[in-house]
Amino acid sequence: MATRDYAVTTGADVRLAARDGKHTGPTSGLAPGFLQANMLVLPVEYADDFRRLCARNPVPCPLIAESSDLGSFNSVTGCTPRLTMKGCDLRTDVPAYMVYNDSKLVKSHCRDIKDEWTDSHVGFLIGCSYSFETELAAAGLPPRHVVLDRNVPMYRTSLALCPSGVFTGSTYVVSMRPYKKKEIEQVRAITRRFGATHGEPIAWGWEAVQSLGICDIDVPEWGDAPLTEDGKPLSETRERGDRDEEEEVPVFWGCGVTPQEAVMRAGLKGVVMAHAPGHMLVLDAKDEDIVS
Amino acid sequence: MATRDYAVTTGADVRLAARDGKHTGPTSGLAPGFLQANMLVLPVEYADDFRRLCARNPVPCPLIAESSDLGSFNSVTGCTPRLTMKGCDLRTDVPAYMVYNDSKLVKSHCRDIKDEWTDSHVGFLIGCSYSFETELAAAGLPPRHVVLDRNVPMYRTSLALCPSGVFTGSTYVVSMRPYKKKEIEQVRAITRRFGATHGEPIAWGWEAVQSLGICDIDVPEWGDAPLTEDGKPLSETRERGDRDEEEEVPVFWGCGVTPQEAVMRAGLKGVVMAHAPGHMLVLDAKDEDIVS
Repeated sequence: MATRDYAVTTGADVRLAARDGKHTGPTSGLAPGFLQANMLVLPVEYADDFRRLCARNPVPCPLIAESSDLGSFNSVTGCTPRLTMKGCDLRTDVPAYMVYNDSKLVKSHCRDIKDEWTDSHVGFLIGCSYSFETELAAAGLPPRHVVLDRNVPMYRTSLALCPSGVFTGSTYVVSMRPYKKKEIEQVRAITRRFGATHGEPIAWGWEAVQSLGICDIDVPEWGDAPLTEDGKPLSETRERGDRDEEEEVPVFWGCGVTPQEAVMRAGLKGVVMAHAPGHMLVLDAKDEDIVS
Repeated sequence: MATRDYAVTTGADVRLAARDGKHTGPTSGLAPGFLQANMLVLPVEYADDFRRLCARNPVPCPLIAESSDLGSFNSVTGCTPRLTMKGCDLRTDVPAYMVYNDSKLVKSHCRDIKDEWTDSHVGFLIGCSYSFETELAAAGLPPRHVVLDRNVPMYRTSLALCPSGVFTGSTYVVSMRPYKKKEIEQVRAITRRFGATHGEPIAWGWEAVQSLGICDIDVPEWGDAPLTEDGKPLSETRERGDRDEEEEVPVFWGCGVTPQEAVMRAGLKGVVMAHAPGHMLVLDAKDEDIVS
């Protein structure tokens, strides 16, 4: 990794580096121990429906904080006091943004959204799974994509979200990390405690690929294709047909791309903004602040 | 309705009548305006998994209160202060109970559970849809089963719950009320405000019957078969093939039978207790206390 001339030790460090245009890349691995969040900024007329969408679907859409007041970008109120944050700027503190107008992408990976943010926008922060990945690694169960320095594979599914107002017809997006059958109960127990960042898996085993309506485990809709330990397509594990506890199977979690997909599918009018994939908002709260 | 020699005007009235053995029947229509709740009583070793099951699946499993302390039957703490209740007795205040031992039914419609309740039991109260039915009726959209004095039809579906610990492999149970297509947005708007009692529908239209994996709309797993206004099987509406806004279609909500099904399917050890279907615990809180 290239040497940086700016600090990325705390959440505030990363936000400041993004604000100053020094850090424009992904945030994975930065400010270890600090919570990272997905961000969605919506016109206020959709805010109530979106809050209810999250409340009805907390596993894929864990809403952890939102703008303290209508239009406020420098203060968010958390679902618990520790997630409340002041002195941020939601318009500049994410390393890269996406901007949509009338549900069409109009800017990709831009540095700020100062021109787009208005007094009638509301920013929403959604939990992300980086928190529990650290904990899995600490327990000797590092996710495969971390070991191989790849992106986590993410898939569209046919599993319906509970609709809310304008947000109808959407389905879960899931992330996938392969584990051996004998490891699954430990993986479930570790991630279960991270209720604000997707919690325990929603499904596991090869039979879940079909029940979730995933077309091809080797072709995720987002992220990188999943590999075996020796770098082959994950589906080859299945073809090997081991049926013992050493067999590796896909394990699926709710994914923070879900609310973005729901927003895109709803055909919203006006300007919607989001972080660019992998370029998260890093908070002042720590991972342990959200563990139960 | 037969004249009663006991009051059923308030939640406390109904609880006292049940405690005294005077009221042993269903609670539908009693103490109008007071919240009614499903009850489940579990051994403490399953309590954390059950709380998380509800937190992960709030639409079908809206947990609204639980025993204030381990083993306490005379005080429940609500998810909001108004749902907290003292001076009740969860062992006697439900008109009829079901008792399961090692997941097998051992008593049906018994009057109390004093002998079964131990210091290591926890009582959980789950919201029920009576609240929004009152509001639908007030808006001129009374549910069909209310008009025809029948029970609401309820169905098993193939829609997966997010698992939690021992509670794996379960699916949504849904209730169904038919409405005309042109009425659906109003029905959604009215019930949306009742977030603590299932909220807005999860699916609607004839296509939802298939997507939810319901075998036969005329044969619900619980409750009475749904009928058209003129008393024919509801499926005949479909066969009529109207495609306009006057067409009546099934509308599905999350149902409080879901957590009971999840508990039964988990194969729990020890003594589990529940209210008998339709024989709810009536609370001191009012419907308006849970509306947002």
